[in-house]
Amino acid sequence: MDHYLELFSRHMQEGGSAEGKREFLEIGRLAGQFPAARSRRDGIDAEISVWCSNDYLGMGQHPLVLAATREALDEYGAGAGGSRNIGGTNHYHVLLEKELADLHGKADALLFTSGYTANDGSLSVLAGRLGNCVVFSDEMNHASIIDGLRHSGAEKRIFRHNDTVHLEELISATDPDRPKMIVTESVYSMAGDVAPLAEISRIARKHGAMTFLDEVHAVGMYGPEGAGIAAGLGIADEFTVIMGTLAKGFGTTGGYVAGPAELIDAVRGFSRSFIFTTALPPAVVAGALAAVRHLRASDAERHRLRENARLTHRLLREHGIPFVSDESHIVSVFVGDDELAKRISGLLLERHGVYVQAINAPSVRPGQEILRSAPGAVHEPSEIRKFVAALDEIWQELGLTRAPDPRRPATTDG
Amino acid sequence: MDHYLELFSRHMQEGGSAEGKREFLEIGRLAGQFPAARSRRDGIDAEISVWCSNDYLGMGQHPLVLAATREALDEYGAGAGGSRNIGGTNHYHVLLEKELADLHGKADALLFTSGYTANDGSLSVLAGRLGNCVVFSDEMNHASIIDGLRHSGAEKRIFRHNDTVHLEELISATDPDRPKMIVTESVYSMAGDVAPLAEISRIARKHGAMTFLDEVHAVGMYGPEGAGIAAGLGIADEFTVIMGTLAKGFGTTGGYVAGPAELIDAVRGFSRSFIFTTALPPAVVAGALAAVRHLRASDAERHRLRENARLTHRLLREHGIPFVSDESHIVSVFVGDDELAKRISGLLLERHGVYVQAINAPSVRPGQEILRSAPGAVHEPSEIRKFVAALDEIWQELGLTRAPDPRRPATTDG
Repeated sequence: MDHYLELFSRHMQEGGSAEGKREFLEIGRLAGQFPAARSRRDGIDAEISVWCSNDYLGMGQHPLVLAATREALDEYGAGAGGSRNIGGTNHYHVLLEKELADLHGKADALLFTSGYTANDGSLSVLAGRLGNCVVFSDEMNHASIIDGLRHSGAEKRIFRHNDTVHLEELISATDPDRPKMIVTESVYSMAGDVAPLAEISRIARKHGAMTFLDEVHAVGMYGPEGAGIAAGLGIADEFTVIMGTLAKGFGTTGGYVAGPAELIDAVRGFSRSFIFTTALPPAVVAGALAAVRHLRASDAERHRLRENARLTHRLLREHGIPFVSDESHIVSVFVGDDELAKRISGLLLERHGVYVQAINAPSVRPGQEILRSAPGAVHEPSEIRKFVAALDEIWQELGLTRAPDPRRPATTDG
Repeated sequence: MDHYLELFSRHMQEGGSAEGKREFLEIGRLAGQFPAARSRRDGIDAEISVWCSNDYLGMGQHPLVLAATREALDEYGAGAGGSRNIGGTNHYHVLLEKELADLHGKADALLFTSGYTANDGSLSVLAGRLGNCVVFSDEMNHASIIDGLRHSGAEKRIFRHNDTVHLEELISATDPDRPKMIVTESVYSMAGDVAPLAEISRIARKHGAMTFLDEVHAVGMYGPEGAGIAAGLGIADEFTVIMGTLAKGFGTTGGYVAGPAELIDAVRGFSRSFIFTTALPPAVVAGALAAVRHLRASDAERHRLRENARLTHRLLREHGIPFVSDESHIVSVFVGDDELAKRISGLLLERHGVYVQAINAPSVRPGQEILRSAPGAVHEPSEIRKFVAALDEIWQELGLTRAPDPRRPATTDG
C-alpha cells in the first residue's frame, strides 16, 4: 500500500505548486455581525472582516431566513431522509421550485444539492440527449459547466470570452440542421464582468440555438425582484434555461435550473446527480425560500450592493489599484503572480484583519492571479475606505505597479 | 425553440416508461414523531408511516442533533458563504473531518456536499491520477461510483456481484505491475446484502491492490461506535479508503472519504466536485457532528435497528412474502415487475397509510423491481406487524406468488 501513497505524494509534489496541498482559513462568520468573523489560525482566534464571501447580500444572517430555517428544523428535523424520489420530497422543495420558476418566468424549476451538480447534472442531460448537438461555450465558463458538457459527450466549440463575433463565426460555420446550444454565464465569477446577453440572444435566435444561462452570481442581486441580469434587460424569456444558486445572493445552499416543462422533465428523469442523491434538508430549503421571497419584495439590499460596488470601484481607481472589471459587485484586484497574490492576502489578514482569498490556478489561469473581493450589501462605506487604504499601503510598501490611467483599469480575460 | 421542446418530449416518451416523468410523493416527516409523517396528494393531507427512509436511526430528529444545528445556526447563520478554499471553511468542518478520520481510524477525512459528489469527486481523482490504473468494480456498485470511475478515465473491469472468485479471476489475469484498485460497497443499497469484505481484502493484499470501500448504508449502524461493517469485522485498516455519508445513519446531509493523508491531500487538491462548490452550511455540519458523536457513544439505536430487522425478516418468512436478503436492515420485498411494484406501493399507501417507494429502473435492472423497505430504529414492533399484515393482505388479494420455502427467500442479484 505504501507504494500507492508514495505515488500520490510524488504526484502532489509534481503537479503540486500552490494548489497541491491546500490549506483553508478557518473562519466563523458571526450571524448578525457579518462581515465580521472570527478566524482561527494555530489555535489563536482573531476578529476579522470578510471581503471574499459569496453571501453578497448577507441573507445567510437575515432574521427571516434564520426564523424560517428554525421553524422547518423544529417541524421536520435535520435531514430529508432520502432522494427526491424515495421519501425525500418535502413540501418546501415543492414550494421553492414553484417560487423559482415564477421568479424566472419559466414553466418549471428543479432543485439540486449544489450549483456544481445543477450544471453538471442538467447540461449532461440537455446537451447529451439532444442528438447530434453542438454546444458553443464561453472559454471562461465555470468548471461545473465544463464538467457537465464533458459528461454529456456532446461536441463542443469554445468561443473567446464574451466575444460574440467569434461566437457567430463558429456558429455560422456549423451545419444549420444540427441542434445547437449556447452556454454562457451572466456575471463571471472571477473577473466580475458581464456577458453581452442581448447580442448572444440575437445570435441564438438567428441560428436557431437553445440557450443555457448561468446566473449564479446575479440571482437575488440584479434585475427586477432579483431575477438576474437577463431579467434586468427584459430578455429573460429569450434564454431557454436559466440556472442559479441558493448559496450566494440567497445566502443558503443548493442550485437549480428553471425552464420549459419538457426540458425540466428530462433533467428530472435522467440527471444522475439529481436522481442518485439525498434531497436538500427541508430546513435549508425553507431558509432559501424565505430569502427568495424577501428579495423579490425588497430592493434595499440590491441598492446597497450597487452603491458599495460603485464606491469600491471609485476608490480603487483613485488610488491606482488595478482591478479587472467595474461591471459588477465582484471586484478582483489584479496581481498576476501566484506568490505575490498569497503575500498580499497574508498582509491584508495579518495587519488589517481583512480576509480576501488569493485566487490561483486552477480557478484562474496561471498569470491571471487575483485577490477576489466582493464588497457586499453588508459592508459599511467606512469599511470600504479602510479596505482600499490597506491595499494602498501594501501597494506602496511592496512597490507594486499602479493602474496607469484611473479611467481605464488594467484588464484581463480572467 | 419549440423544435427543441418537441425533441425532448419525444425523447421522454421513447426512453420514457415509468421513469420518464417522475412524480414524487410529498411528505413531511414530523420531527419527534417519525416514522409518522404527513403526506400531501392533490392538496389533501394524510397521516402516514414512512417505511423507506434512509434516516435509519432517526438521528434527523434526535434532540442532540437539533440542538447542535440550532446553536450553530444562531451563531453562524444559514450558509457557508463560499467554497472551502474561499471563505467557506468553518470550525465545524474542521471538527467533523477530525471526528470522521478518528471514527474510521484513518489519518485524514474530507467532507463533500453529498455522497454522490464524494464518490464522483474522490474516485475520479484516485483512479484517474494513479497512472495506468486498473479498477475492479462490483457490478452492483452505486451510480455515483460508476460515474466517478467513468470520469476518472481509468480502465475498469466489472466483477459479478459479490463474486470473489470472479474478482480474483479478473485480477489474476491483469499485469501484476499495473496499479490496481478494488471498489466495493459494504451494504448494498437496493438488495441490502453484504459484501464478503474479508475475502476481498485477502485478494487485494495478495495482488497488491488499493481498496475503496463505500459504507454509506453502514456508517452509524454497524460495527463498534458505528464505524461500519469492516470495523465490525476488525479489518477497517485493511481498506485504504472508507467512504461514507452523513445523510443516512447520521440523519443530516453530506458525504465524506477517510484515508491516508497522501490520498486525502490529492482529493482535496484536485477533486473538482470538492473545489468548485459551496461548503456545507456550518449548521448542517454541526448537526452531523452531534450525530456522529452520539452514535459513537450509544449502542441503543444500533441494537433496535438489528432487532427490528430480525423481526421483519422472520415475519416476512412466516407469511411467504419474498424478499431479497436478510443480511441487513434494508429489506427489499421482491416484485420483479414495474407496474405491479407501483400498484402494490399505491395500495400500501392508500389503504394502510404505509409509504414504501416502488423502485424501478434505473435504480434496479428491469425485471428486478422491488419495494425497498427499511425498518429503522424508530419503528415499533407493533408497526412492523401491521406492515407485514398489510403486505400479506395485498399478496392475498392480488394472488401473488409466495416465497416457496420460508427458510430460503427468493434471491436476486438486486
